Amino acid sequence: MGKVNLAERFATVNGYFQQQIVGELNGQHVKLAKVKGEFVWHHHENEDEMFLIVKGELTIRLRDRDVNLREGEFFIIPRGVEHCPVSRNETHIMLFEPASTVNTGNVINELTHEPTRN
Amino acid sequence: MGKVNLAERFATVNGYFQQQIVGELNGQHVKLAKVKGEFVWHHHENEDEMFLIVKGELTIRLRDRDVNLREGEFFIIPRGVEHCPVSRNETHIMLFEPASTVNTGNVINELTHEPTRN
Repeated sequence: MGKVNLAERFATVNGYFQQQIVGELNGQHVKLAKVKGEFVWHHHENEDEMFLIVKGELTIRLRDRDVNLREGEFFIIPRGVEHCPVSRNETHIMLFEPASTVNTGNVINELTHEPTRN
Repeated sequence: MGKVNLAERFATVNGYFQQQIVGELNGQHVKLAKVKGEFVWHHHENEDEMFLIVKGELTIRLRDRDVNLREGEFFIIPRGVEHCPVSRNETHIMLFEPASTVNTGNVINELTHEPTRN
């Protein structure tokens, strides 16, 4: 039961699209990830998902538009909505979503993984 | 269903300890508040509460210790744990907590209020 310093915790995140759990409350996880490049198109059947940009820039592609996010901005993707995060440069994001959420949603591929708890 | 820029939304928050809902997902609220001075000792019977410091510094007093938070740090207060947020200067915080959460928890006083949705 300690505080979390985001910069310190991001320093321990290795690789891109690897989620690290840094908080848990009310059945939800707070997770950190460094991302760079394009993820995979997917959706979450039963989970809304929040992306908060801590550093850098991220585009969340939706089927009908792009949502461009920069540091200090967040976006909530409602359950069922297909999306694909993409960023040109390394970007640090904080995610807030139910503990049940699988990172690649309905898609299982080489990017699918359980979050860590370093 | 748009993105939220934290700085822009904080600019529309009036007064201290006035919570503004800026996001809703999975039965949880994302709320912003400017705080300055001392709040009130209280606890939430059924809700864990997360404070993320966006700007400034906040001390969360617990009965057995103080948790000192600065920009880029967060702390989760488990349900049932008495706490009292206090800050010397204006501080901007983002809260994550269930939509059912009352700002003053088990205490009803002049600080108790429903969050707004400006």
